[in-house]
Amino acid sequence: MTEPSTRPETLTVHVPLDGGRAYDIRIGRGLIDTAGDAVAALGGRRAAIVTDETVGALYAGRLRESLERAGLQAGIVTVAPGEGSKSYAGYAAVCDGLLALKVERGDLVVALGGGVVGDLAGFAAATLRRGVRFVQVPTSLLAQVDSSVGGKTGINAPLGKNLIGAFHQPRLVLADTAALDTLSEREMRAGYAEVAKYGLIADPGFFDWCEANWRGIFSGGPEREAAVASCCRAKAAVVTRDEREDGERALLNLGHTFGHALERLTGYDPARLVHGEGVAIGLALAFRFSARLGLCAGQEAGRVANHLALAGLPTRLQAVPGGCGDADAILDAMAQDKKVRDGALTFILARGIGQSFIAPGVDRTEVAAFLRNELTADADV
Amino acid sequence: MTEPSTRPETLTVHVPLDGGRAYDIRIGRGLIDTAGDAVAALGGRRAAIVTDETVGALYAGRLRESLERAGLQAGIVTVAPGEGSKSYAGYAAVCDGLLALKVERGDLVVALGGGVVGDLAGFAAATLRRGVRFVQVPTSLLAQVDSSVGGKTGINAPLGKNLIGAFHQPRLVLADTAALDTLSEREMRAGYAEVAKYGLIADPGFFDWCEANWRGIFSGGPEREAAVASCCRAKAAVVTRDEREDGERALLNLGHTFGHALERLTGYDPARLVHGEGVAIGLALAFRFSARLGLCAGQEAGRVANHLALAGLPTRLQAVPGGCGDADAILDAMAQDKKVRDGALTFILARGIGQSFIAPGVDRTEVAAFLRNELTADADV
Repeated sequence: MTEPSTRPETLTVHVPLDGGRAYDIRIGRGLIDTAGDAVAALGGRRAAIVTDETVGALYAGRLRESLERAGLQAGIVTVAPGEGSKSYAGYAAVCDGLLALKVERGDLVVALGGGVVGDLAGFAAATLRRGVRFVQVPTSLLAQVDSSVGGKTGINAPLGKNLIGAFHQPRLVLADTAALDTLSEREMRAGYAEVAKYGLIADPGFFDWCEANWRGIFSGGPEREAAVASCCRAKAAVVTRDEREDGERALLNLGHTFGHALERLTGYDPARLVHGEGVAIGLALAFRFSARLGLCAGQEAGRVANHLALAGLPTRLQAVPGGCGDADAILDAMAQDKKVRDGALTFILARGIGQSFIAPGVDRTEVAAFLRNELTADADV
Repeated sequence: MTEPSTRPETLTVHVPLDGGRAYDIRIGRGLIDTAGDAVAALGGRRAAIVTDETVGALYAGRLRESLERAGLQAGIVTVAPGEGSKSYAGYAAVCDGLLALKVERGDLVVALGGGVVGDLAGFAAATLRRGVRFVQVPTSLLAQVDSSVGGKTGINAPLGKNLIGAFHQPRLVLADTAALDTLSEREMRAGYAEVAKYGLIADPGFFDWCEANWRGIFSGGPEREAAVASCCRAKAAVVTRDEREDGERALLNLGHTFGHALERLTGYDPARLVHGEGVAIGLALAFRFSARLGLCAGQEAGRVANHLALAGLPTRLQAVPGGCGDADAILDAMAQDKKVRDGALTFILARGIGQSFIAPGVDRTEVAAFLRNELTADADV
């Protein structure tokens, strides 16, 4: 290896929540091996790691050793990899596993893995003995820039994704950027959709930076830590102002109303579509829909799609392997989303790159016409 | 019926929690039939009733009509009666039922039933779409004086009772005391153990009053509303000062460390032991254990047991149908309780009636010797 496995610089993003719930996000290479001291500093006797088979095989042993070196009793609960574990059955298995490890109220749950593990372990921690503290150790780019920060935890219900859950903030997030070295290209790309999203929501300068620097994020240059820190700062700022999504936090769902519908329509089958790919298509759709409504210049929508495509991400409904049904099917899949309120569809739309806004009460007919047009449009456009 | 089905007086106990979470407990005859206006005043389009087959057959139709008269869309989710529904499977069924009724973030869940329904529906409400509001309509004495107030919600895990849950305060509690007319004598007695508990914890005057007036609570005289209101006031005061049980709220567990262990050892089989019976034995044990430790006069312990027995409640381990195992079995069953912290046993003990206190770190050997003595003592003592 010519690349050093650790860099001296660890970046820290502080999330200044009230009520004693403020926490730090640390971002740097090698943090898994030094996690013990950071976790032990939070107090407690026991730290129970929740992970999946894939991530656990790579990192759970090292994390456990670090925790034990710091004097903590450590145990491991392992689930099957993939979205299927974010279910009622997966939740029951994690809770029972933590109880079997005798996790008590003062102890800690440590989520080691991607978004699925973080959401699942976080929800188990939120509800085990009516709430124990937890630490996020996200190992995917998606989890490092998005799901590990902000306290949304939960599982899927048969009727839809993330319909069951709790707001439960972590006490610490350790984003070991060296862990991303073991991700597949496809997983990196999927996470990158969420990175680009932060520029598209409210930071045109960050989107410019992404266009110039995205390759460094993928290859593991210092751009990686810089990007993760930028995303976490952006998310932390939104979450601090609107923790429970009564308002602007909904902006973080840019691309997600379409994206979640596509995930539903492909049966949450990662062989067909992973979350970040759904988000990438959703981002492109949100901008094209905004352009169609006359809110945003068509060339801005084009610039969004071009950049996502350059990074290897899908940007069209036609790119969904096996297809995603017709406009009505997509609309029905969107209607079960949490963001439905009193039956009206709420979208995040944009007046340009970095100028997104919440649009409640979008007309269903307008969406249907847009989707029909998209489904018949030339896939190369 | 010579007894009027409604009395003009409805008593109100206010629970002054912060953060916009203050709520009222209303206590009176006939509140189910007038619930609609009270629930509609909270806002929202839809109210989903969660109930069990037994209570639902008696009251769900009337409650639904009242909600609909007030302009709410009402639906009903029904579970099997009994502690078995407070399970992972019961939780999933209630959540999926509420989602099928299209309960959205601004809507309300209405728990209609005893402690099982309130705990289960409250936990589903706490976690459905990461939290929707809920109303408690408790129909058992136990639920009216204890479980419907204070925001503890949850389910049982195979490893123990109430090990999974959330703190989620109701927006309103409607305790219809006429609903108690349909309870069996055994259910009334079980609830009465929790009534007497409030006197034993911190209010010797209320225990005196109970000794003089308990028959009126059972027969449905005005003593019933007075007792429910006294208990709710006492609980509300404790919960307001210590919502998340960091301290004095643990006093409400007087009798429960023993009681929960007995419930575990009888397999949560209501044919053998219901919660309130476990609590009654636990209250008597807590006072006799306190007397044995020299903390409390023996005649105080005798007075407690005598009163509970007069009300028809069990007060000895020997009264558990089918037995409850030996001292070690009881100790092991207690060790899995939530109130274990860093492995030490925490008990609520008493220096006399109305003088309970939290005793952390009670010596296991001391408890074992006490239990062995209890198990060999003459059951008539």
